[in-house]
Amino acid sequence: MDLLQLLLALTVLLVMARIGSAIFSRFGLPGLIGEILMGIVIANIIVGDWSFMEDALGIVLPDPITDPNDAGSSIYQVVYAFAELGVIFLLFTVGLETKVKDLMNSGKAALLCAIFGVVVPFVLGFALIMGTEGNMNHALFLAAAMVATSVGITARIIKDMRLMDTREARIIIAAAVIDDILGMIVLAIVKGMVESGELSIASIAQITIQAVAFVLVIIALCKWVVPRIYDYFDARNRALAAEGKTPMKVNKLALAIIVCLAMSALAEYIGLAAIIGAFLAGMLFADHAWEWELEEKIDSISTFILPLFFLNVGMQVNLGSLADATVIGLVAVVIVLALISKYIGCGIGSKIGDKSLDRSSCSIIGVGMMPRGEVGIIIASIGLGIVVEGQRAMSEDLYAVVVLMSVITTIIAPPILAKMFRKKYQEEYRILPEDRI
Amino acid sequence: MDLLQLLLALTVLLVMARIGSAIFSRFGLPGLIGEILMGIVIANIIVGDWSFMEDALGIVLPDPITDPNDAGSSIYQVVYAFAELGVIFLLFTVGLETKVKDLMNSGKAALLCAIFGVVVPFVLGFALIMGTEGNMNHALFLAAAMVATSVGITARIIKDMRLMDTREARIIIAAAVIDDILGMIVLAIVKGMVESGELSIASIAQITIQAVAFVLVIIALCKWVVPRIYDYFDARNRALAAEGKTPMKVNKLALAIIVCLAMSALAEYIGLAAIIGAFLAGMLFADHAWEWELEEKIDSISTFILPLFFLNVGMQVNLGSLADATVIGLVAVVIVLALISKYIGCGIGSKIGDKSLDRSSCSIIGVGMMPRGEVGIIIASIGLGIVVEGQRAMSEDLYAVVVLMSVITTIIAPPILAKMFRKKYQEEYRILPEDRI
Repeated sequence: MDLLQLLLALTVLLVMARIGSAIFSRFGLPGLIGEILMGIVIANIIVGDWSFMEDALGIVLPDPITDPNDAGSSIYQVVYAFAELGVIFLLFTVGLETKVKDLMNSGKAALLCAIFGVVVPFVLGFALIMGTEGNMNHALFLAAAMVATSVGITARIIKDMRLMDTREARIIIAAAVIDDILGMIVLAIVKGMVESGELSIASIAQITIQAVAFVLVIIALCKWVVPRIYDYFDARNRALAAEGKTPMKVNKLALAIIVCLAMSALAEYIGLAAIIGAFLAGMLFADHAWEWELEEKIDSISTFILPLFFLNVGMQVNLGSLADATVIGLVAVVIVLALISKYIGCGIGSKIGDKSLDRSSCSIIGVGMMPRGEVGIIIASIGLGIVVEGQRAMSEDLYAVVVLMSVITTIIAPPILAKMFRKKYQEEYRILPEDRI
Repeated sequence: MDLLQLLLALTVLLVMARIGSAIFSRFGLPGLIGEILMGIVIANIIVGDWSFMEDALGIVLPDPITDPNDAGSSIYQVVYAFAELGVIFLLFTVGLETKVKDLMNSGKAALLCAIFGVVVPFVLGFALIMGTEGNMNHALFLAAAMVATSVGITARIIKDMRLMDTREARIIIAAAVIDDILGMIVLAIVKGMVESGELSIASIAQITIQAVAFVLVIIALCKWVVPRIYDYFDARNRALAAEGKTPMKVNKLALAIIVCLAMSALAEYIGLAAIIGAFLAGMLFADHAWEWELEEKIDSISTFILPLFFLNVGMQVNLGSLADATVIGLVAVVIVLALISKYIGCGIGSKIGDKSLDRSSCSIIGVGMMPRGEVGIIIASIGLGIVVEGQRAMSEDLYAVVVLMSVITTIIAPPILAKMFRKKYQEEYRILPEDRI
């Protein structure tokens, strides 16, 4: 491998990601949307036949049409490896924010909001694809991609508006966390079903039990085992310090990275997705993440490698597929379904869970759960990476549909949510005029 | 590329590096030495024929003997890419600690200490190889590897002993910084000479001028241009804030990473080593590194990828070559020369620069400049990577010699330095008994 090409490739890709991110942040939108769109622009508009990328940077994308197992040039493989590790660290930080304690106390409204918010989009998404093209694998992955909620974007708006202490905000945040866990279980089941190719009730039950058990084991570890390990070492270090000896020092970041990678490998090994392992690894550290500054430190690593993931997401979208009227129609239908299904599912779910919520509160919760952000895309890209009987589990067209759906739900929901919050909490509405939403 | 293999490979390598590092840190020695030795152990003792590594982790090392251009398996290439980026970020943080202001004020003793400390080891190392095996490329790279001083280890001892305000400490730190810059220039010249294959006075002069000019341009930028750019944006943001507008926000870490990668690519492109560009890029940010928390943030990235570099350094050492009595003799001679040449060069240099220094002070300075640490190894590994007319610019045997020389000078010097400091500053010696040195 040529070091010069690698350095040039990383420099050019990171600069492009930065430009995309800066433009979107300027308008108060999440930078990652800008990075994805920049990826689409690079792959479809600027570069065209990719000769510049190939000659100067050594980047040759894999060609899924000629060979579904094609991995691209060696420089691209390094970029791809960075991108994959970037998502793994991203899900790790999502896990870091998921405390088992909070989950247990989240209340019935949040729980039912999350469950209905998973079931309704999944059923509608699955029915749509089975009713049109009829490919079971495609239907499963599209449905799974429609389930995901991106906590980050909604949470940022609520934080910016200083409305963290409202009832709606608390339900949204708790439901989004439960939604993440349910989403991981759905992904595990879908991946298991697609890879095994079997669709008997018995095999579905087995995969479901396996996925749920894995998640429950980790939650149990978080609740009963991890605190004891921590207390043991804490007590031992106090004892050593009392005797005048040097306490044991552990590089906490290195420990967290190793556990994250090992759990990701374990999840991948037993047939779940690597990101599920990373997410659960994050949960193991959630109680000490703040004290150990883990999020901040992992964020530094992500600043370096995560933009490569979002850029790569965009680079795999083939705008050519949108020339087809059927695909454009599908994009429109999927976006409408994605918005409506979360609005109705989460709104009704929270109402059932807590009868005292009024109509406007349920609406706010429904809108707050709409953005799909990165999680839907991550699921779609896992589908793109699975090859069953020489065919990808996600078609290139459907992948483009999911990316656009995620991008558009993420752009549409925030301003509506901010407006609804503002209307409801006019008096308590304390944001300064120059704060962007 | 298989994601499971990649995750397993990274997990296993990072765990092994951590174990090596923890053992050495326990004895107060630099963790990187433990990582290098662990690499040697993995490659030569534990694994033997590498079948475990190949089958489970997908790691296949390149085989330089059958094909000097062999790059290894795709997983190894990813590990290699991480390792290379790890060194680049390492040199970037060394640059972050190198302020042009301090260089200008470092005084004559430090300047002459550094110059003599570069010239004496280079001449002795060059003469040794030319007098024995007589291969010019090998002689140049061994000599360049003997020049490097590792600031970090000496600085840590001085800091641990709280002797930063002594005269010797100030001279050592300043000289080590100048030594880094001189070392980069020497590396640039050696690399240029080896790659061009020409050894006329004219070509050496041209390469020297080019290398020195590149360094001087960056120093000039640091001194006159960068502060103005910073002041301009600072003033503009103040003005925006005064008008009640949102000040421009820049992700400083992303900016630093992009500049680091771009300067490394530029250095590599004009024929210097990438690490020279990274080092100079660090100097550009040195004045704001503390305020922007750059070192801390880059350190988080290094925690992830740098152990892979040191492990890889060790994995390329072939202990088999030490079965040869000539090579063992060479190791012994090189280690003795490495220790003596810095002791004499730096001792005499500082004495000439400042006549008022007594013998014990000059001795302390000489010992303080002895450890080669990582820098010597980095230079040797660059030599290993250059292929001229089908031959590597550094033989496998000599590479093993340099690694052992670096490891042993780094282990030997610290206890001697601590003892000499303690003897001289018995009264001011304020370290607590439990502090390790």
